[in-house]
Amino acid sequence: MFKFISEDEDTKARCGHLVLRHGTLETPAFLPVATKASVKMTTSRELEEMNAQGVIANAFVLFLRPGVDTIETAGGIHRFMNWDRVVFTDSGGFQMLNPDFLVKVTDDHVTFKSPYDGKKHDITPEICAEIQNRLGSDVALALDDCPPYGSDIEHMTASTKRTIQWARCFRKATEDESQNSFGIVQGGTFKDLREQCTRELVDMDFNGYAIGGLCIGEPKELMHEVIGWSTPLLPTEKPRYLMGVGSPEDMLKAISMGVDIFDSVFPTRNARHNTVYTHTGKINLGKGKFRCESGPIDESCRCYTCANHSLSYVNHLLREYEYLGMRLATLHNLHFLITLMEEARTAIMEGEFNDLKNDFLRDYLGSK
Amino acid sequence: MFKFISEDEDTKARCGHLVLRHGTLETPAFLPVATKASVKMTTSRELEEMNAQGVIANAFVLFLRPGVDTIETAGGIHRFMNWDRVVFTDSGGFQMLNPDFLVKVTDDHVTFKSPYDGKKHDITPEICAEIQNRLGSDVALALDDCPPYGSDIEHMTASTKRTIQWARCFRKATEDESQNSFGIVQGGTFKDLREQCTRELVDMDFNGYAIGGLCIGEPKELMHEVIGWSTPLLPTEKPRYLMGVGSPEDMLKAISMGVDIFDSVFPTRNARHNTVYTHTGKINLGKGKFRCESGPIDESCRCYTCANHSLSYVNHLLREYEYLGMRLATLHNLHFLITLMEEARTAIMEGEFNDLKNDFLRDYLGSK
Repeated sequence: MFKFISEDEDTKARCGHLVLRHGTLETPAFLPVATKASVKMTTSRELEEMNAQGVIANAFVLFLRPGVDTIETAGGIHRFMNWDRVVFTDSGGFQMLNPDFLVKVTDDHVTFKSPYDGKKHDITPEICAEIQNRLGSDVALALDDCPPYGSDIEHMTASTKRTIQWARCFRKATEDESQNSFGIVQGGTFKDLREQCTRELVDMDFNGYAIGGLCIGEPKELMHEVIGWSTPLLPTEKPRYLMGVGSPEDMLKAISMGVDIFDSVFPTRNARHNTVYTHTGKINLGKGKFRCESGPIDESCRCYTCANHSLSYVNHLLREYEYLGMRLATLHNLHFLITLMEEARTAIMEGEFNDLKNDFLRDYLGSK
Repeated sequence: MFKFISEDEDTKARCGHLVLRHGTLETPAFLPVATKASVKMTTSRELEEMNAQGVIANAFVLFLRPGVDTIETAGGIHRFMNWDRVVFTDSGGFQMLNPDFLVKVTDDHVTFKSPYDGKKHDITPEICAEIQNRLGSDVALALDDCPPYGSDIEHMTASTKRTIQWARCFRKATEDESQNSFGIVQGGTFKDLREQCTRELVDMDFNGYAIGGLCIGEPKELMHEVIGWSTPLLPTEKPRYLMGVGSPEDMLKAISMGVDIFDSVFPTRNARHNTVYTHTGKINLGKGKFRCESGPIDESCRCYTCANHSLSYVNHLLREYEYLGMRLATLHNLHFLITLMEEARTAIMEGEFNDLKNDFLRDYLGSK
């Protein structure tokens, strides 16, 4: 159930409470990615301490390893991970972009191969729903057909038709409401297809709507345009989830367009490559100029890393390829995005979201 | 200052308090290894939570990167690492075993090359003392000449003579007592040389004595024999530190011979290769048989990993090469050894060390 709490006057930014089996997601919210039931380098205690409200795991990847049986034996994905807050599970549609996984797509299923043993698996929307139901996540994402950016209009038309058809089957298989069920809007960068897909999915009365197939290589301006094709057609009283988007600037812009939920591997992946967020922009922590910097990564940050360690120390660890350096950078980046969402919620409720957004973007992008 | 607290009646096991600038090391004690000012994968908070009393860093490695200046600017090794408990620093003598470092040894210094840039550095005992003094560790280890296992009697005789000569120079350079200074007994597996080296070092009145050059390839029985050549010659009122030894069975045996302090990369390195300690022996956590095991790694363990995660989950993470799996295994292994030392201290004080040792070894080795 999504409780609409507040709307910003100047923008379309919204605050809400998405009430789920394992707790409430206060939106706007950022979900750290736990593809294999683990947020890279990070314990569930650390996620709790940074006020992460939920994570997103990948149902198809977990179906391959360790297998649904193993997770069901543990009592579901939450107990398996020792995480008692919200878990979303992605369907596996996104893996179609990965040639290590994709074999072929037909009108009624996708055939994946396991990158572990080469074994083929036909995944229908119904099987996809069953996997997620057995994993016991709070929110199941519909099986979608996600073609690469740049696919032509014929390909995208057929693909969008499949996404709609699969969503219908998936919705039927998840109607018992034991778990929230979200549809995923596709349609590439074609306005007609995006609008058609959005309308059809809305008719299916999902518990929420994801916008998929973005942040996969298209220009940023186009991405924001595409988001704007869907949001006006989505029902106000349902949550909107922009999948795979997680840079601070993109999230703030999308929030101002009415998006509620985000996920991205950026904060964890960037951290492992020395890049961290600060209020004055991204920095490469491995640079020599930080060698003797006694201050924290970001003066205003209250994460474990900034509270306990100097730039100089993290710089040393990263330059020496010490795992602890990647851990400390990961903690900082996740905390930074989660805190930014907290600040966005407060600002929306106080009618000051536009100021927050403009001030943040001025400092964050201005330094480049 | 070493306060002698208690001695076991049946064995030579001892309890003591080594009072240092940054706190007291209650012995027997195990020091996790922080070669580059970081215990692999582990934060200082986690080390505190598992009751680690101290760590050992490597002075020569830190001299190369990030450099003594950087650490001095931070206010010393403790502030650099954000670790306010005990820090030992090893001298670099051990790096002579590594052809990436060693260029040559002369009677008055060792020439190392930096594996980073190939630059050569002549390290005398005095320079070695100065580096450790500037790093600000609680205990500085003398520069020793550590030849490979199997070196012949001529080589070892010359090398031991150098170790003694360097120890004398090092002791002179560290006489101000601002920092504890430990000599390192060498002499390979030659009884005469070990005894001679021990006696000469004892004459120099170090604050403590390390036994070096062991656990470098010699058979286990020989290692215990070599320890027994030194311990009777070492003064009762000074701490004894067996360097590089860290398997549970070796530590318990060495404690019964009167050793007080240990360090080893085994617990962290083993963890990264899926091997963890349990009271019924070492296990390979990556094995398929643990796939659905809902219990912890060790039922009696109170570490973060065992308190929060199942064997099944850690097994999954390790099989998937998720960093979190290595982290959780590392936490468990370090906690296991530190707790074993706590149990040894209690048992010694209660006059039950021999029972603890025999019971532990029966369960631990019996399962193999």
